[in-house]
Amino acid sequence: MSATASTHASNAEVIAHDVDHVFHSWSAQAKLSPIAIRRGNGCTVEDFEGREYLDLSSMLVNVNIGHQHPRVIEAIQRQAAELATVAPANANPARARAAELILSHAPEGFNKVFFTNGGADANENAIRLARLHTGRDKVLSQYRSYHGNTGAAIVATGDWRRVPNEYATGHVHFFGPYAYRSEFWSSDEQQEGERALQHLERVIQSEGPESIAAILLETIPGTAGIIVPPAAYLPGVRALADKYGIMLILDEVMAGFGRAGEWFAFDAFDVKPDLITFAKGVNSGYVPLGGVVISEEIAAQFDERVFPGGLTYSGHPLACASAVASMEAMADEGIIENAHRVGAEVIGPGLRELAERFEVIGEVRGLGVFWAVEFVADAQTREPISEEFMGQLKNAMLERGALPFTSANRLHFVPPCVITDEEARRGLRTLADALAAVAAG
Amino acid sequence: MSATASTHASNAEVIAHDVDHVFHSWSAQAKLSPIAIRRGNGCTVEDFEGREYLDLSSMLVNVNIGHQHPRVIEAIQRQAAELATVAPANANPARARAAELILSHAPEGFNKVFFTNGGADANENAIRLARLHTGRDKVLSQYRSYHGNTGAAIVATGDWRRVPNEYATGHVHFFGPYAYRSEFWSSDEQQEGERALQHLERVIQSEGPESIAAILLETIPGTAGIIVPPAAYLPGVRALADKYGIMLILDEVMAGFGRAGEWFAFDAFDVKPDLITFAKGVNSGYVPLGGVVISEEIAAQFDERVFPGGLTYSGHPLACASAVASMEAMADEGIIENAHRVGAEVIGPGLRELAERFEVIGEVRGLGVFWAVEFVADAQTREPISEEFMGQLKNAMLERGALPFTSANRLHFVPPCVITDEEARRGLRTLADALAAVAAG
Ligand SMILES: Cc1ncc(COP(=O)(O)O)c(C=O)c1O
Ligand SMILES: Cc1ncc(COP(=O)(O)O)c(C=O)c1O
Repeated sequence: MSATASTHASNAEVIAHDVDHVFHSWSAQAKLSPIAIRRGNGCTVEDFEGREYLDLSSMLVNVNIGHQHPRVIEAIQRQAAELATVAPANANPARARAAELILSHAPEGFNKVFFTNGGADANENAIRLARLHTGRDKVLSQYRSYHGNTGAAIVATGDWRRVPNEYATGHVHFFGPYAYRSEFWSSDEQQEGERALQHLERVIQSEGPESIAAILLETIPGTAGIIVPPAAYLPGVRALADKYGIMLILDEVMAGFGRAGEWFAFDAFDVKPDLITFAKGVNSGYVPLGGVVISEEIAAQFDERVFPGGLTYSGHPLACASAVASMEAMADEGIIENAHRVGAEVIGPGLRELAERFEVIGEVRGLGVFWAVEFVADAQTREPISEEFMGQLKNAMLERGALPFTSANRLHFVPPCVITDEEARRGLRTLADALAAVAAG
Repeated sequence: MSATASTHASNAEVIAHDVDHVFHSWSAQAKLSPIAIRRGNGCTVEDFEGREYLDLSSMLVNVNIGHQHPRVIEAIQRQAAELATVAPANANPARARAAELILSHAPEGFNKVFFTNGGADANENAIRLARLHTGRDKVLSQYRSYHGNTGAAIVATGDWRRVPNEYATGHVHFFGPYAYRSEFWSSDEQQEGERALQHLERVIQSEGPESIAAILLETIPGTAGIIVPPAAYLPGVRALADKYGIMLILDEVMAGFGRAGEWFAFDAFDVKPDLITFAKGVNSGYVPLGGVVISEEIAAQFDERVFPGGLTYSGHPLACASAVASMEAMADEGIIENAHRVGAEVIGPGLRELAERFEVIGEVRGLGVFWAVEFVADAQTREPISEEFMGQLKNAMLERGALPFTSANRLHFVPPCVITDEEARRGLRTLADALAAVAAG
């Protein structure tokens, strides 16, 4: 049986074949419930029996340009016909052009891009650059964060996925602002931001500023709950980094390239990092790609000195060609602006309306096509809703033809950036219907 | 300028565009000398001015099936047209089929494949599996080794690239067998193997066997010098691993999928690992891909227990479709057998003949399309030849239209597995001419 022959298989066959042979990420292997996906188009994916789903997950929040965008597919096919792969030491125009375009969307003062295969190794290399540039070792990052699954990235990660993987050293975690569940006994958003900065400064002082190479932050913590920081927080972190000579790395792997309705999510805040990491939305994951955007100051450190990092597929032509086409299409077709507008005009208002109708919704927050709906058992105590409820909600959405993204007590409403108003409204209706069905038992 | 428009550029333009924007692996950025590569075909690549090179490097020893193999290119284009990307939690036939085919080439007792983006994260996850399976922490690996550039993989790595990156813990290094430059005062290959095993057992005992999760070995250390181990070494390591309850991970990233003239290089030895890591040759790097082949015993550990590792592009359909096509073509077209035969009949004898003609050649070793030529300043003391000589040799080969792979005092003769006898002879002639030219000054 060839890979194409099996496109005539049933969902059950595809799933059985998969779970027999494939070991799955972040899972107990006897408890998998994959959905078989045959093809996609824009915000829709289709299984092997012709059933369509509205993709409100963008897979793993990476298909920003939608499924199977024709210009990106064509660029992959064209580059494949010319040259699929080349060693990193060589030069190839797809790679140079991808770097140039990424830099064109970055602030002044950035001049080089180091390419990797995904988000984890992007953070690995940003951490390496910061450590070597400062000659310091420690990296501070938030408990509520995810930065990837390799030896340094998984330890930079703040969430539970760090704990079974603590083999690296020099990683310190702190609490970020999260007004809805404050760690700082604050009473409003502004106070939350101020106290979070005081807390961070106390951690810096207590760890010893001269031992800290970098503060690594998701601009908007994503998997942890799309926790949009108070306006003053990131500028305040920048000021602390400057005060203590610490590099600021902003992880834009999930938040960047349109997700937040901006090229970089930090464009929505008044802050400029020293290093930017990216993956996912840069080419919507059509080909594995990630990387680090490097400031002139840090890049210059390695003009004469060897940068001690690398990987076989750094600057892969197929991946870079898909990134070029994706960024060009995003610019030409106003895709970033669409994400911004749909978020402000349709998704945000729609979710807030649902929050008024359904008492189980504790908070709605987000921007662009990057929204979290937090469910609670009790509106006063904000006690997270049960796993059982979340499982029922997920199934109710699947039954109604929508692919949801759920995590803990939250649903993340994270469709592709190309979503139309009509599709967004359909997604909101599906969520409302699913909630009503679960409420009705 | 689009990525395609620039294919009409000159080499100098492509290179200038690249070095302006792209930060390169393992390099001082002001001292780059990339070659601009436009396209490829089999064992040949072409620059932007129509100049062809015989690729004796397979890029980074990964293009095992040769450049632009039509079946693999077509599979990429077809899968791109159907579905480029999908979340790891879903099921997709390209992924299942790739896992099934990889398992079909593995020994009995392996039943699952975990996919990653490359070699480093393959080793990361193999180490994670071994640590969680055994409940132990330490990982033993050789000084002469390379296992990748992420937090745990770079520290498992034995060569100099580890030292500026030592942030992970629990990694212990030991010496492997290397008869030409013995660390054990041995006088022949057999004694070298025996003493290397005694040394390894003393390291295990001294570190405390109950603290050691895994021994991680390149089946044939590659970047370190294609150091083929004595026949008894790997079976001896297996026996030590069994004696002390330690997992044996064989890193087949470079040696596997045809490079050594076998599907897995360990097929040439009497040994069976617990975990196998792969990347490069599995799909010749046409799309970034790597992974871990997992034994039934270890996979079963995670039936009910969550495997705490993952990545966004695990089991990427485009990457997996290219691996399926590549493995099918390798089987149908006898590509592994070709590599085996050309190595035994043409490359090996040809290099040995050169060793007789040129005194600077200290040793020739290898198998399949995986050969090292070690250059020495003095045949008696075996003092490595100068960097200057290696630079001249590299340039002399480039001038004569061959892309060499050089590392320290060695040239690695590592063409694609599809190389014909005629091409191999041409490569050998080019090397002879280049050596003669350098000798003549
Ligand atoms: C913010 C962030 N950083 C890093 C990563 C890791 O990316 P990858 O899975 O490509 O390694 C992720 C993945 O979800 C992420 O959301
Ligand atoms: C034996 C071995 N393991 C691992 C790696 C790392 O692979 P990657 O560069 O894809 O991360 C390499 C790369 O050269 C290798 O040769």
